[in-house]
Amino acid sequence: MFETAELGAKVSKEEYEKEVPKLRAALLKAQEDLRASPYSCAVLLSGVEGAGKSETVNLLLEWMDPRGIRAHAMREPTDEERHRPEMWRFWNVLPPTGRTTALFGTWYTHPIVDRVFGRCSPAAFDQSLDRIVEFEEMLHREHTIVVKLWMHLSKKAQKQRLHALEKDKLTRFRVGKRDWRYLDRYDKFRAVSEHAIRKTSTGAVPWHIIEAEDPHHRALTAARTLLVALRARLDEPKEASPQKADQPTRRRGARQKTLLSTLDLTRKLYDKSYEEKTARLQERIALRTRALAVEKRSVILVFEGPDAAGKGGAIRRVTRAMDAGTYDVISVAAPTDEERAHPYLWRFWRHLPRQGHVTIYDRSWYGRVLVERVEGFCTPEDWKRAYAEINSFEEQLAAFGTIVLKFWLVISPEEQLRRFKAREEIAYKQYKITEEDWRNRAKWDAYETAALEVFEKTSTTAAPWVLVEANDKRYARVKVMKAVADALKRK
Amino acid sequence: MFETAELGAKVSKEEYEKEVPKLRAALLKAQEDLRASPYSCAVLLSGVEGAGKSETVNLLLEWMDPRGIRAHAMREPTDEERHRPEMWRFWNVLPPTGRTTALFGTWYTHPIVDRVFGRCSPAAFDQSLDRIVEFEEMLHREHTIVVKLWMHLSKKAQKQRLHALEKDKLTRFRVGKRDWRYLDRYDKFRAVSEHAIRKTSTGAVPWHIIEAEDPHHRALTAARTLLVALRARLDEPKEASPQKADQPTRRRGARQKTLLSTLDLTRKLYDKSYEEKTARLQERIALRTRALAVEKRSVILVFEGPDAAGKGGAIRRVTRAMDAGTYDVISVAAPTDEERAHPYLWRFWRHLPRQGHVTIYDRSWYGRVLVERVEGFCTPEDWKRAYAEINSFEEQLAAFGTIVLKFWLVISPEEQLRRFKAREEIAYKQYKITEEDWRNRAKWDAYETAALEVFEKTSTTAAPWVLVEANDKRYARVKVMKAVADALKRK
Repeated sequence: MFETAELGAKVSKEEYEKEVPKLRAALLKAQEDLRASPYSCAVLLSGVEGAGKSETVNLLLEWMDPRGIRAHAMREPTDEERHRPEMWRFWNVLPPTGRTTALFGTWYTHPIVDRVFGRCSPAAFDQSLDRIVEFEEMLHREHTIVVKLWMHLSKKAQKQRLHALEKDKLTRFRVGKRDWRYLDRYDKFRAVSEHAIRKTSTGAVPWHIIEAEDPHHRALTAARTLLVALRARLDEPKEASPQKADQPTRRRGARQKTLLSTLDLTRKLYDKSYEEKTARLQERIALRTRALAVEKRSVILVFEGPDAAGKGGAIRRVTRAMDAGTYDVISVAAPTDEERAHPYLWRFWRHLPRQGHVTIYDRSWYGRVLVERVEGFCTPEDWKRAYAEINSFEEQLAAFGTIVLKFWLVISPEEQLRRFKAREEIAYKQYKITEEDWRNRAKWDAYETAALEVFEKTSTTAAPWVLVEANDKRYARVKVMKAVADALKRK
Repeated sequence: MFETAELGAKVSKEEYEKEVPKLRAALLKAQEDLRASPYSCAVLLSGVEGAGKSETVNLLLEWMDPRGIRAHAMREPTDEERHRPEMWRFWNVLPPTGRTTALFGTWYTHPIVDRVFGRCSPAAFDQSLDRIVEFEEMLHREHTIVVKLWMHLSKKAQKQRLHALEKDKLTRFRVGKRDWRYLDRYDKFRAVSEHAIRKTSTGAVPWHIIEAEDPHHRALTAARTLLVALRARLDEPKEASPQKADQPTRRRGARQKTLLSTLDLTRKLYDKSYEEKTARLQERIALRTRALAVEKRSVILVFEGPDAAGKGGAIRRVTRAMDAGTYDVISVAAPTDEERAHPYLWRFWRHLPRQGHVTIYDRSWYGRVLVERVEGFCTPEDWKRAYAEINSFEEQLAAFGTIVLKFWLVISPEEQLRRFKAREEIAYKQYKITEEDWRNRAKWDAYETAALEVFEKTSTTAAPWVLVEANDKRYARVKVMKAVADALKRK
């Protein structure tokens, strides 16, 4: 595969100087069009050490309008980064709509290096690559133009290049022991990289291998590749405008047997038993939460369910057992404009807990396949692919050791009505009831159908759904606290 | 001062239970009004260890609408936080408009503890307190309602409380060696805290000392204090709408002698000398930038000046000497809605460089006293107080060891016209010229007057302005590179 990038391609200084102004003008035009488009662009620079990745980034920063491009060198992770799943740091630097990010040091670096040094098995390596493919396809669909450039040098050329860098006092600092160690393993790197490139070069997000020995050739090829990739997407015929949502419907009256209809909503708990159980469970949660820091684990609790199902009350019973500094309740409402300018899951990655901490999402990323689906806020393609994206997200959390628990509080429509009316009467509960709640209530069946599909497609061992019979608040709270206490105990 | 909080105030369980629903409803109402207002709210919980700060936060989280309040425990700083000036971590958690943040662990913690253990002099302590007053007054003016609660316990009460916490296995973890060490120094803490409270209790942002021995009394007093503070600001008569900007004007023709008019804009550099000098200066910058990481210093370069003054070109000559991973160019444009929902300087704090890194601001916080002043985007009070806020910001940077350099590129109106016309002709420069540039040009005199006031009020030893004669681009670039190289050399 790399043979095609060892042909000795060269570009003369004259040709280079002739080409640059044209290329620059075209890149700026593309950048201007990007700004006006729904797209963003991520340029990934990977490849052999010393092949000119940072020179290429410098060049792009110089040629393009600096207001629309930023570069991020992803070196060793900081402690904030190490406390969260690996992809967190990349989510943090994703380009917003209209802008370009150049990354050197990419999500390929760790998997490849770990494989070369035998720190992960071939199977684990393939799994990382699969996850990368999913991630990049998600970016692609979320309107990010991902351009992957692989800078290649032959073994001989790399050796020469490192020696040259080392001789110049201006660049000497760039050659470390690591680079020579890597050169020793050139063949292994080559084989592993080839495998990675083959597995992750997809139709939507292909790799571009660039012969990097001659700086002029390297610069022109990299810039042209970027230009072509930008133009290809920008010049596509306009996407059809979002279709009317295909609302899940079901004939009234014809109630089939479903996961929800089989729940026994008459379950109740009596006062005395409730207080005892609450005290005992809160004690267990308190002790286990404190152990999280030592175990270097974090916890995510998701609460979903109809309005007035008692999410807030259940959350408070759990948080009462925790130290105010260790948890954070994120109430998910409409996204901000910065959030809207990023892929859908970005706003949830932002709030992931550090190790030892708990994040509770009051409503969550499931909004995409619930409210956004039912109300037609996104296209059917968007919410249909969201199941897989959500599963991949939750898998990453679990793989990192995060405990993920998802609660669905189930109430009957009759109980909801009763609670709505009560809320309108108690002063300190009035803030909880709005016009929108009544509107949502009218779509009860559509929401229920969407919910059933959620359970079917996203209840995994790593992140199970817990359905909670919630017509009786006390019963629901105890069930939630018990599930949390149990989950915290498991290692 | 603390005597008034050692009176043995108590609230009975009955009274407590009678008061809570009323207080809760009133707090929720205030929160609702806050959401619709231009204000945000920061609640600071300080005071004696064991006095119930975290219990109070827990209670507020429970009583109030969780969608509008978040708590942040500011414990030991993470490494990302240690790499930036101390206030960075607090800027990160400031509440956006309409919301409340409860902080325990505040900007008072470090100064007070350092003073008690003799790690800072009385003078340095007072200086910290002055800086805090400035910061809080800025918050106040930027529509943040700052509520400072000091939880007080007598020495005897604190001792009892620590023993009680230690005896209960649910709270034992909260009492560490540190708490007993602090108790040993109770008197010193008391004296230092009293001094701090006295110096920082201002009309706009007063302290509230709360007797914390009885939990019911503590809870009610804290909640009531918060309520009163919220209501006071929310019920103020509406602010007058921003007046028409008082545009700086000057009669044309009557050119006085100013800092700008005395510059010799005919200065020039010739080709050969330019290339030599550039190479030498870039080498110096390259070597010195690399040393930053070892020295644990960061660099901030600010570029201001009229459109087409050559800011971008000068920036590129500097960044060419740097490794793409060590610098970041922030092009300052219109703020996002998240940025608009925070105090003015928030969006610049966001991008402060880590140690070893360089952030270059292409336009900057000076926008407030330049474009926002001239165009009337903010009120005269806003930009008038901005000089002091900016100076305080830059002082903090310098105190942290950040090298701050501010460049003003000066061109004549005639040269600007020539460049505007040239830009319209060169393909890859067209993106740089817009309608707005022509509009700004028409306000040349207003901008110049604003600029003169900027130099007068914000050129400090810590963060000096460098005026650069920029009619000749080569001369300007060399002057900029030289200033950067020199500044990097100084320790």
